[in-house]
Amino acid sequence: MNDVRWLDEREARAWRGLQALQLKLTARLSRDLAADSELSYPDYAVLVVLTDQPDGRLRPFELGRELGWEKSRLSHHVSRMVERGLVTRESCPSDHRGAFVVVTERGRLAIEAAAPGHVSAVRRHFIDHLTADQLDALAEITDRVLGGLDEAAAPGHTTIARGGTSA
Amino acid sequence: MNDVRWLDEREARAWRGLQALQLKLTARLSRDLAADSELSYPDYAVLVVLTDQPDGRLRPFELGRELGWEKSRLSHHVSRMVERGLVTRESCPSDHRGAFVVVTERGRLAIEAAAPGHVSAVRRHFIDHLTADQLDALAEITDRVLGGLDEAAAPGHTTIARGGTSA
Repeated sequence: MNDVRWLDEREARAWRGLQALQLKLTARLSRDLAADSELSYPDYAVLVVLTDQPDGRLRPFELGRELGWEKSRLSHHVSRMVERGLVTRESCPSDHRGAFVVVTERGRLAIEAAAPGHVSAVRRHFIDHLTADQLDALAEITDRVLGGLDEAAAPGHTTIARGGTSA
Repeated sequence: MNDVRWLDEREARAWRGLQALQLKLTARLSRDLAADSELSYPDYAVLVVLTDQPDGRLRPFELGRELGWEKSRLSHHVSRMVERGLVTRESCPSDHRGAFVVVTERGRLAIEAAAPGHVSAVRRHFIDHLTADQLDALAEITDRVLGGLDEAAAPGHTTIARGGTSA
């Protein structure tokens, strides 16, 4: 680790920009969502993932992987959503892989009510500031990086596997 | 809200791409960081913000704003970092704005130890997949969106203030 290549100015600008964008755009969309709906941004993220499933349910580890959340964060957050009736936990006695997290009817109604305002906010704070060329460039950039991540995660890839216990 | 303009294909591709990038790149960097250091990605994020302060301390609400985290998430996470000796809470009897979160010497050593590996991972999973033009395009995109967010947040801006209690 002694020959680390620290980021040069161009690289640091792009990386810092992406991090700041992630942080500030998420913070802004979170505030708008909280003001316009009964959902927080993490609530919304959980409900998007669950309502994308044909049966509205996922195991916690799958949900955590989709959201990119640590186990403890997921557990705390799901508990709060259970208290508010947005999701339920359903145990699965037939195997040992733990309970499912399941979206409730109330959760479905909440995300349906929140979605139009959220999309307007995404447009107002993100889409509307960019040209068509910039939107295409961003999509290309994200495809490239995501392609690299998929390749690195593929079984049999020759780089050293680092830490993941992904299923 | 009846005349919502849902995202068209180009817009949706860019937005979904950014969200997937955010999620999967963070997940990957988190795994690498956990494998190579004693810090989780959220630990690292907290320590970056604190060590960027001249005196290594921030009030919880400031720290939460910098990180874009909800209060409950911040509180849970800081408690775990306190248990591990990476930060401390210092109360401030002279005013009512609550305790500070302060990086410890152990926290400083932990982020210094983790940084070289983390930068290598950022390069491997992100920077190395992009051309110089793409890095510049991304920096330009993030500047545009961040500029819009700053403008929307500026006092006296004529759009309707939405929900924020930002200081």
